[in-house]
Order: sequence, then structure tokens, then C-alpha cells
Amino acid sequence: MMAGKYLAGIDLGGTKIYAGIADLEGKLMATLKIPTEAENGPQAVVSRMVESLRLAAEKAGVKMSEIAGLGVGTPGPLNSRAGIVYTTPNLPGWVEVPLADWLAVATGLPVFVENDANLAALGEKYFGTGQGVDNFVFITVSTGIGGGIILGGQIWRGVTDMAGEIGHMVIDTNGPRCNCGRQGCLEVLASGPAIVRRAVAGLKEYPDSAILRLASGQAQGVTTHHIFQAAREGDPLAQVVVHETAFYLGTGITNVVHVLNPALVIIGGGVGKVGEQLLRPVREVVWEQTFARSRERLEIRQARLGDDAGVLGAILLARGELELRPSCP
Amino acid sequence: MMAGKYLAGIDLGGTKIYAGIADLEGKLMATLKIPTEAENGPQAVVSRMVESLRLAAEKAGVKMSEIAGLGVGTPGPLNSRAGIVYTTPNLPGWVEVPLADWLAVATGLPVFVENDANLAALGEKYFGTGQGVDNFVFITVSTGIGGGIILGGQIWRGVTDMAGEIGHMVIDTNGPRCNCGRQGCLEVLASGPAIVRRAVAGLKEYPDSAILRLASGQAQGVTTHHIFQAAREGDPLAQVVVHETAFYLGTGITNVVHVLNPALVIIGGGVGKVGEQLLRPVREVVWEQTFARSRERLEIRQARLGDDAGVLGAILLARGELELRPSCP
Repeated sequence: MMAGKYLAGIDLGGTKIYAGIADLEGKLMATLKIPTEAENGPQAVVSRMVESLRLAAEKAGVKMSEIAGLGVGTPGPLNSRAGIVYTTPNLPGWVEVPLADWLAVATGLPVFVENDANLAALGEKYFGTGQGVDNFVFITVSTGIGGGIILGGQIWRGVTDMAGEIGHMVIDTNGPRCNCGRQGCLEVLASGPAIVRRAVAGLKEYPDSAILRLASGQAQGVTTHHIFQAAREGDPLAQVVVHETAFYLGTGITNVVHVLNPALVIIGGGVGKVGEQLLRPVREVVWEQTFARSRERLEIRQARLGDDAGVLGAILLARGELELRPSCP
Repeated sequence: MMAGKYLAGIDLGGTKIYAGIADLEGKLMATLKIPTEAENGPQAVVSRMVESLRLAAEKAGVKMSEIAGLGVGTPGPLNSRAGIVYTTPNLPGWVEVPLADWLAVATGLPVFVENDANLAALGEKYFGTGQGVDNFVFITVSTGIGGGIILGGQIWRGVTDMAGEIGHMVIDTNGPRCNCGRQGCLEVLASGPAIVRRAVAGLKEYPDSAILRLASGQAQGVTTHHIFQAAREGDPLAQVVVHETAFYLGTGITNVVHVLNPALVIIGGGVGKVGEQLLRPVREVVWEQTFARSRERLEIRQARLGDDAGVLGAILLARGELELRPSCP
């Protein structure tokens, strides 16, 4: 049984710390975003996390002593059991940071740390598109491409917390070079920056593209938003880029389906927000590339929780971990 | 509790039926191979399966009435729960065959049906390379490339028994056309026939290759055995082909590692028998393409059971399923 009437969650990102307080059902009572100021290093960031928690509790009208536990989502790689975060590209200076211990000392709370994409998957399972589904893959398409896997209703972490690295599956052995150093990863073909890169490269051939007009004539200002907007307006370059994106993303999903045969693939992240404009052609690619029996019970749907998924997942993590503990006499 | 003192297993292949009888520990007492004669259709094949079981029991000195249950491995797609085999390329005329029911009626035994690669994985878990490992992927590299996934010590079947279709992950979107109709699947790049195809194509450029000499000058007689032998002799074409094979196979394994983060990948099947000559360069590719934390606890090892893996897995399936049943008063 839990001591305390409330749960806390923090989603730690490279630019923002997102904190939330919920009741024991996981219903959010208050949320709060503050800048991470990652450049100040791990100790400063952890202080800001504690501050974000204090402010969120205040906003919710909850005393720190009434909080049963704190769940935290961070970018990987990490050791979820020990609550240690290894080096991570968006958090400069983080090298084997004992995040759970630091936060436990600073707050007096039981602290549970987990990969952020896994927590977004957990959030979607309990409050979003994954409700009632026990076997699914959540894919976030944004600056990078990450994933969280739910099997048998539980997060599948893998043996060293590295499961769900969907973005670094190789789908084109002759493809462009990825940030990870390898060639033809899904991420370097279908992430937000990859979509923009392909569109900007195409401007040479299509100098009159609506993409450029929507970006106020500045090629360096092109965003995925401009590209999807131009495609909706019928712009040929934008349509090719969206089509290619759906092909790459659909191929990545095909590979995941061939390995895991899940009931559902949920697409989230900034790029995922475009919804059916991307999901419809993605489904066509996956239907084309999989076996009839593999897709017999497969659905591909949009995430529902947006930016809340991670913090809700963090709260659910804390709840789940606390419930596993033996009751105190 | 089980009635009967022995367990039976059958591994049904397109060319051979492999039957075995074991004690309740899974120790094989007798095995037997007979031709499938698949061309005679499903009813004739099932009769031969029953015959193979009778002969194996006789060989083991066991009465049919002393057998507690029968496990059966078949090529997919199938419905493991209902024991139904859908159409499968190597078994002509099989369309939704209720294999478990037919065999149960013919033998009077409880019958359990499972994908053959899953059973080979189960066999390796209890008696082979997977002993003591709860999270691993078994990959069979042969005429095709298939897989069986063990998570938390159990077969991971997926929601429609289609998990582990490793061979149809796309790793080169511009690659050659696969039998499945898609482009650049792992199977069309690294299976036995794919290896031979690449070697034979290379004979134009390398007409003096040792591969041709080993195949008695007949390009149409080249086998993977000739190619690996020639590579060991230092033949340049054969070395290139082996190197490419390791690259493709290593890339496929990389993708599986990124999705599942297992502790072990076991390579079996006819091509896998070559062992370290292939596994050493495969490991190099996987080590190159994965993150340090993803491979921190990863091993890539050869299967140990060879052709026995499937029948042993079938016997273990029967044992496991029978033990799940409530005891009778």
C-alpha cells in the first residue's frame, strides 16, 4: 500500500522539464513546464527538477509530504533499476548520473526512473490510444525517432533498457549517414529533420514550391509543418516528400511488425501530430509489405495524449512500482 | 498432472517428418525421419505423421497409451491456440487444416501445434545454446530465414502467431525482389539461395574462382558449402560473398537488437552450421551498428541442437501445455 494521497511525475527533456501532480487514479491535478537549462549541467538540472515538482505541488494545493512517490522519464541510455542516466546527447555533462538517488535525497520521496518513450507508451496505454490493448508499439516521430514497447500489458525494457530503439533500425543499407554514425537508419530517413532535409534538397528542382512560400522564402526556415501544409495544397515536391516519408516510416513499422506482431502501432511525437495525412499512406505501405496474417489484427493509430503522455506515464510508473511493494505493518 | 510416462514430438517439414519420443524430462529415447510426401496433400501427410509417431514409439519401446501428449511444429502461418495451419508454401493443398484436431482424433492424444522456429527456440532454451537465458532470439538461416523469440522464458508468439518473421524485415529498400513480393528483405539477401545467387553472379567477374572448381565446374551445382570452403581457401570472390552475407545478417540482427535488446542471438539452420567463419564477421557488424549499452550483455552464438531442436521443442511444448492443465480428481 502507498503512503500519501498523490503521485508526482517529471518528464525531463533537453529543453523543458515537465512536472505533474495526480491523484492515485492518475488524474492530473496540475502540470507545469520550465526550461531545463541543460547547459548548466546535471546538478543544476536536478535542482530545477526538484523546483518544478515543488511548484507543481503548490499549484495542485498538495503538500510534498502528501506525495507517495515520484516517477521520472529521461532520455536513454539509462539503468532503470538503479535509476542511473548514462551519457545522453541532449543533456550535456551527464555521465552516469545517479538521478533516482539525487532526487530521493532532495525530495525524501521514493523515485523511479524510466526511458521517456517507454513512459509515453505507458501513458498511452492507460489514458490514450492504447487503452485496452496489451501488446503494442509506441513510436515517437520528432527530432529523432524513438519507441516504447508494451507486451502483456507491461513495458518491455530489454535486458539493458535499450529495447524500442526503433529509429536506429537500418532500412536502407545504402542510405544517408545518421547522427549515430551508421547508414540508412529509419531516423535519418523519416524524422523531422530528415523530412526537412529532403524537402530543402528538392527545392533545387522545384524552386517554385509552395514549401518555400510558406517558409517566407527562407529555405533555412522550412519546417515539417510547411511541408505537410504545402502537400495539402497540392504542391508536387511536398507530396513527393510526404510520400517518401510514409514509405520509410511504413517500412520501419513493417520491420517492427515482422519482429513483434503487435495489435497496435501508435504514432506520436511532433511529426505524428499531422495525423491521417501521414497515417493513411503509412498504413498503405505496411499493408503492402506485411503478410495477411501479420496485419489481421493490426491497427496503426495516432497518439492521443501529446506532450502529456510522458508525465502521465511517469505518474503511472510511480503508482505501479509502489503497488509492487509489500505493505508496511 | 500428466497421464502417461512419455512425451511425443513431431517436426513437420516440406520434405521430412521428424518424430521423437522422450521421457517426461524431455530426454529423447527414439527419433525417426520419414519423407513428408507433401505432394499427396494434407490428409495423406497427417496419416504419415501418425505413422511416424507409431514407428518412433515402437522404436522407443513405448505404447501409444503411455504417451501423455504430442507437440507438433509446422511452418506458419498458423493459429497455435486452435491448432490450425493456414496456407504454407512448402505444403501444397494446406488451407486452414485443423491439424491438432485431426491428429487428436487419429491418436487419442492431447495435441499442441506451434510454429517450427518457435519450437526450435524452445528446444535451444532447454537443451541447447539458450540454456539459462530468458530473453533471446533464435534465427534459422537456411532456404529461408525465420526466427523464434523467447521473452521472460516463454515463446513470444505475437497476437496472431506471426512474431519472429525476421527474414522479412526490409534492410535495403532498393534491394532485390524477395519471394514474398517485396524488395530488400533480409531473406533475399542472406538466405542460402541468396548467398549462392550472389556467388554465381560473381563468377562472370571471377571465372577462375575456387567456388566453380569445388562445384565440379557446374555453376548450377554451387552450394553454400562450396562458397564457405572456397573462402577458407582464400578465394577472393568467396571471401567477398561471405563478407557481404555477414554484413546483411549482421544488419538484420542489429535491427532485432534495436527492437528487443535481447541477451543472446542464436544462429541456427543449414547456413548457421558453418559456425565461427560466419559468426565472427557477423559479430563485428553488429558491434559496429549497435549502441554500447545495447550490446553490453549481448552474445551471438551458434545453435547447438541442429535438426533435433524442432522435435525437442515440440516435446517441450507438450510438456509445458500439459503442466498448465488443472489436475484431475
